[in-house]
Amino acid sequence: MLLVHKYGGTSVGSLERIENVANRVAKVRDQGNDIVVVVSAMSGETNKLIDYAMHFTQNPAKQEMDMLLSSGERVTAALLSIALQAKGYDAVAMTGRQAGIITDTIHTYARIESIDPSAMKQAIKEGKIVIVAGFQGVNKDGNVTTLGRGGSDLSAVAIAGALKADACEIYSDVDGIYTTDPRIEPKAKKLDTISYDEMLEMASMGAKVLQNRSVELAKKLDVKLYAKSSFSDNEGTLITKEGNNMEEVLVSGVVLDKNQARVTLRNVSDKPGIAAEIFTKLADEGINVDMIIQNVGIDGSTNLGFTVPGNELENAKKVIESFDHDIGSMDFDNNVCKVSVVGVGMKSHAGVAAKAFRALAANNINIQMISTSEIKISMIIDEKYGELAIRMLHDAYNLDK
Amino acid sequence: MLLVHKYGGTSVGSLERIENVANRVAKVRDQGNDIVVVVSAMSGETNKLIDYAMHFTQNPAKQEMDMLLSSGERVTAALLSIALQAKGYDAVAMTGRQAGIITDTIHTYARIESIDPSAMKQAIKEGKIVIVAGFQGVNKDGNVTTLGRGGSDLSAVAIAGALKADACEIYSDVDGIYTTDPRIEPKAKKLDTISYDEMLEMASMGAKVLQNRSVELAKKLDVKLYAKSSFSDNEGTLITKEGNNMEEVLVSGVVLDKNQARVTLRNVSDKPGIAAEIFTKLADEGINVDMIIQNVGIDGSTNLGFTVPGNELENAKKVIESFDHDIGSMDFDNNVCKVSVVGVGMKSHAGVAAKAFRALAANNINIQMISTSEIKISMIIDEKYGELAIRMLHDAYNLDK
Repeated sequence: MLLVHKYGGTSVGSLERIENVANRVAKVRDQGNDIVVVVSAMSGETNKLIDYAMHFTQNPAKQEMDMLLSSGERVTAALLSIALQAKGYDAVAMTGRQAGIITDTIHTYARIESIDPSAMKQAIKEGKIVIVAGFQGVNKDGNVTTLGRGGSDLSAVAIAGALKADACEIYSDVDGIYTTDPRIEPKAKKLDTISYDEMLEMASMGAKVLQNRSVELAKKLDVKLYAKSSFSDNEGTLITKEGNNMEEVLVSGVVLDKNQARVTLRNVSDKPGIAAEIFTKLADEGINVDMIIQNVGIDGSTNLGFTVPGNELENAKKVIESFDHDIGSMDFDNNVCKVSVVGVGMKSHAGVAAKAFRALAANNINIQMISTSEIKISMIIDEKYGELAIRMLHDAYNLDK
Repeated sequence: MLLVHKYGGTSVGSLERIENVANRVAKVRDQGNDIVVVVSAMSGETNKLIDYAMHFTQNPAKQEMDMLLSSGERVTAALLSIALQAKGYDAVAMTGRQAGIITDTIHTYARIESIDPSAMKQAIKEGKIVIVAGFQGVNKDGNVTTLGRGGSDLSAVAIAGALKADACEIYSDVDGIYTTDPRIEPKAKKLDTISYDEMLEMASMGAKVLQNRSVELAKKLDVKLYAKSSFSDNEGTLITKEGNNMEEVLVSGVVLDKNQARVTLRNVSDKPGIAAEIFTKLADEGINVDMIIQNVGIDGSTNLGFTVPGNELENAKKVIESFDHDIGSMDFDNNVCKVSVVGVGMKSHAGVAAKAFRALAANNINIQMISTSEIKISMIIDEKYGELAIRMLHDAYNLDK
């Protein structure tokens, strides 16, 4: 088999942990597999370098930031290669450039445009373990770029796709995807399998194991993705296409997102384009709008509700207030959270949503906003009930069974 | 003017010191100069990375070491560029590759083969201050290489040569070249000017301001080299071609090298090739031989003396002992040092050497070995007299005047 492993910052956070990763990689090699290993910077390094830059200015040039930040992954890649060689394995470390990762020119948040895997393929053919510095590529001008936070996951998935690897295994300090956050609900259960789409809904809502862009790319490139722990030999969770057997699985997990603030606009002029204008302006200011709800208007006006990240509420307020002649009244609330129920096939099964509403109502938790999609029901509730709601929903769907 | 500045590890050893360098560069820029700045890694960084690698093996692969070690200079280059931009200056950071530095393929001790200065020239033309990560280049296979310890000096000189810069200024924590080590002789005087050749003799003997390869390259490329301090506005020392006025200067400095061990071989078979064989074997073992003295033989045998670095004496012993059938007796002494008098035109002035011998004799310092060249007299003496000899010689040649 040809496997791509990716080890995150915590997994390579010290020389002892790099040694541990070397042992794990060596074992996989001994089992007769070809292997490409993508590594992050040692934990803390990237933040240290950002702090260094911030010492000089709050707004450093992005090209320079990429040159600065890409150094951390190079260090880890070189060290892991050295650690493997010290154990008698033939290994070679490659930068993003050497691994053939070509990106667009958007520094600090570049997108991978293509991968020329010939150098990696050649090294694999020569029997080498290939170690690639994650999080980075090179643009057409020959400058180093980085892929944004969590970009090493993206490197790994893209490489797995380009090499047509049998699997891409993402190693972190958690051993898979759980039905919910075990710190909130101790009965949370690790999932053996989850679909790409479910994972996307879980990840965007705070299950911080896998970066969303990498799940999207895995889906696009049809890469079999595993979330595993580098500190145990547990099986992990396979993220893959929906299989036939998934019909039975109704709800995979419940997720809490506390970084939410609610905006409610009442009696908004129901003239065409006003919502578009508001959301365009919000986007221009870099404010990420999450849930959006609009009811059918009555008497030429409508009510509009949406959520933004808590720390962006103040900026959102300013934008909204510039529209005050078109809005009857406005209401902002930072003390809310979002609880979501995620599951493939949810829509085609009656009663799934009703079960959620009943579970909350039975505990006197008022639902302020509801939004549903093919595989998700999200509810905005008072922040203080967040953990309770998660436990009640986990129980209602029998996720601990 | 087009100037190349190089700042060593101590000069960029903290964020405050990088800020200080940014201020110095900005000032030079404000005076209307174009400027390229070559930087080393922040002091301690390179050693830290070496320690990391040594955690895994005493003998890490050199290609991996280059990937590892080249990261330090990239960090400094990016940070200095960010610091200058924060002050409102237009700056751009370049890796060795981006600056067009092409080397041979000998990892960790690569030689610069050529420089394609077009990217630097273009940036200068656009009014940018160019910041280059020193110590590194790229070989024909596209792999990062490093130039060996002190390689940033070499980067700076090579860039100054390629750009035909008006001067190359090497900044460190000392403010120039002194007639001798001021810690030994407080009356030591800073030299305004010294020739390339004198500097080469000074540097190889422990005046650690400038790396020898960079002085050699400066001589070859006819680069005007300045040794200056980044912590003062003192004039520094100009290292350049011998001018006419240099005829008068007899002795520029006296230098002490304590890292010496003496090997004396008596009654060596005076057959052709035996010396060659001994020194070839020593070279094969990576032992650097410094002084070599052989007298005309008598009765078919000769005496051979040479010095090696103190820490290589044990290895040298092993090599020599393998020749014992050809050697009458051997004598090893680690408690010696070398004092040298350096000066252009020394040979053409009678009595310069005699003055050195008299100065030592007057203080009852026995000279064990003597070696002379065009611009240098070196003497091996008992290690404990080293500092005394330096002071006496400094005085004998009136170097404090």
